[in-house]
Amino acid sequence: MDTYIAVDVGGTQLRAACYPKGETKPLLQKRTSTHGKDGSPVDRLLDLIATVWPDHATVKTIGVAVPGPTNHKQGILYRAPNIPGWENLPLVQIIQSRFNTRAALGNDANMAAMGEWRFGAARGHQNVLYLTISTGIGAGVICDDRLVLGQNGLATELGHITVLPDGPVCGCGHKGHLEALASGTAIARFVAEQLAKGIPSSLSQTPNPSSRDVGMAAENGDPLALEALTRAGRYLGWAVADFLHMFNPSIVVLGGGVSQTGPLIIEPMRQAMSERVMSPEYLHGLTIATAALGDNAGLMGALALAESVSK
Amino acid sequence: MDTYIAVDVGGTQLRAACYPKGETKPLLQKRTSTHGKDGSPVDRLLDLIATVWPDHATVKTIGVAVPGPTNHKQGILYRAPNIPGWENLPLVQIIQSRFNTRAALGNDANMAAMGEWRFGAARGHQNVLYLTISTGIGAGVICDDRLVLGQNGLATELGHITVLPDGPVCGCGHKGHLEALASGTAIARFVAEQLAKGIPSSLSQTPNPSSRDVGMAAENGDPLALEALTRAGRYLGWAVADFLHMFNPSIVVLGGGVSQTGPLIIEPMRQAMSERVMSPEYLHGLTIATAALGDNAGLMGALALAESVSK
Repeated sequence: MDTYIAVDVGGTQLRAACYPKGETKPLLQKRTSTHGKDGSPVDRLLDLIATVWPDHATVKTIGVAVPGPTNHKQGILYRAPNIPGWENLPLVQIIQSRFNTRAALGNDANMAAMGEWRFGAARGHQNVLYLTISTGIGAGVICDDRLVLGQNGLATELGHITVLPDGPVCGCGHKGHLEALASGTAIARFVAEQLAKGIPSSLSQTPNPSSRDVGMAAENGDPLALEALTRAGRYLGWAVADFLHMFNPSIVVLGGGVSQTGPLIIEPMRQAMSERVMSPEYLHGLTIATAALGDNAGLMGALALAESVSK
Repeated sequence: MDTYIAVDVGGTQLRAACYPKGETKPLLQKRTSTHGKDGSPVDRLLDLIATVWPDHATVKTIGVAVPGPTNHKQGILYRAPNIPGWENLPLVQIIQSRFNTRAALGNDANMAAMGEWRFGAARGHQNVLYLTISTGIGAGVICDDRLVLGQNGLATELGHITVLPDGPVCGCGHKGHLEALASGTAIARFVAEQLAKGIPSSLSQTPNPSSRDVGMAAENGDPLALEALTRAGRYLGWAVADFLHMFNPSIVVLGGGVSQTGPLIIEPMRQAMSERVMSPEYLHGLTIATAALGDNAGLMGALALAESVSK
């Protein structure tokens, strides 16, 4: 029997699973913490892969989702903000040397996009725009059944499109990026600023309200929380209109914790997108969907990657 | 002998040429005006193709560049602003019926991008961003050796990314698009506005100065003209930084009349791009080049398209 191993590397947790070819139910699945006393994160990752290795089957390819930008051609992770020391890490070579088996890697947002495209909300679509909105904003784009990667794997950093040239400073240091306006962090910051100005809200009782707190308050009708989500949704819609002009997808898939707030952010997004799109042709037959794979998106994407490089 | 026929449809002129397989020197090349008394533009186009048809060779494919958005899958031109009546025109079917030969079509900016990629300034690159800056701003993107088209062929309308949310109104009706800030039309409009305010300039003698007039005045050191080009270049650089984040190309090719102004617009563009890009990795090994094919870009792109669909 032929199998694939998929690995999802997170800043706090490592997951690995072994899948028979053509199936999405794993033979074996394990997880462990990324950091621990017994060994470096790389050692822990290699050991985890060994624990899901099948006894009586061939592993065709190992696909790995990592939390940072990658060079797909060289198999290198440029850096992982949450894993100190992982810089220019030749992870594909490290894995291939240990297991004598082909490996491939991709960043977590791109892998989630592949997962949703092959196994989730975007199944059957050939042109997919995937956005994950949580602490930051990540993205992956499938054009004509292929992931858009660019020369060095750095394409589709859609959280870093400029939406408001004089807007708030982004985590990357530049002003007015989508991520600085519509991520969970941005939503929480906006609410904190408004509370500091004395705007009344049920959230004034909550110390350092998170975007999750804002979401819950909005569901209970809190005006400030509703404004924060409407505002984030509007900026998101403006950016998505630009993305439609760039990629002309047939589906937009929204993942990440903030998207789970649902209509309170998605409806303002949809409205702003319709107002800003240059021609209704971009909206004809366009599906807006929430992600279907949840926490499994990265792992399933790593499986999709392993399958695709084995073809 | 196998040959390809390439056709470049413009609002005023039609061009067609027949190329032996693997060559870029035509066997036969003809041009005529798009509009005339003897027949509709479609009739004139079909007749022109017939005049370049080789007597003793097989035509494998006919590639056509058209001045408007197209659906590559259906072979349809949605509309051509400069050719009244061309709406939802099934041009591929019309040509195939007449000549019993495979045809394919693409919009002129995408075809120019393909031309520059296969035969011009971007030869050998796999990830190409092509921008043509003249009356409007058109674009084409090659990702991993394939043109980015999207679901309905409407992708990479890069002139319609929002650069200044409250900026001037674009030809498409929306505010602050790149085309409304950095096209030839935008440059001429900015100068007209400044002249109306009484800003001194050598251009105050010129009735309705065009972007070409502005370019010449700038070369002669006129401060207003220089400001107009610097401003356009800066907006262009801001947008290109976003495009680098989206497509991570290894080359940016600038075509169209405005690009011929050269360093007076390209240097401010380069500087603004460097300031706005989120990581120097996007600039590593990045080439900025002016287009090499001039007026032949569309025709050569149609040839590249014909070749690519014959594979």
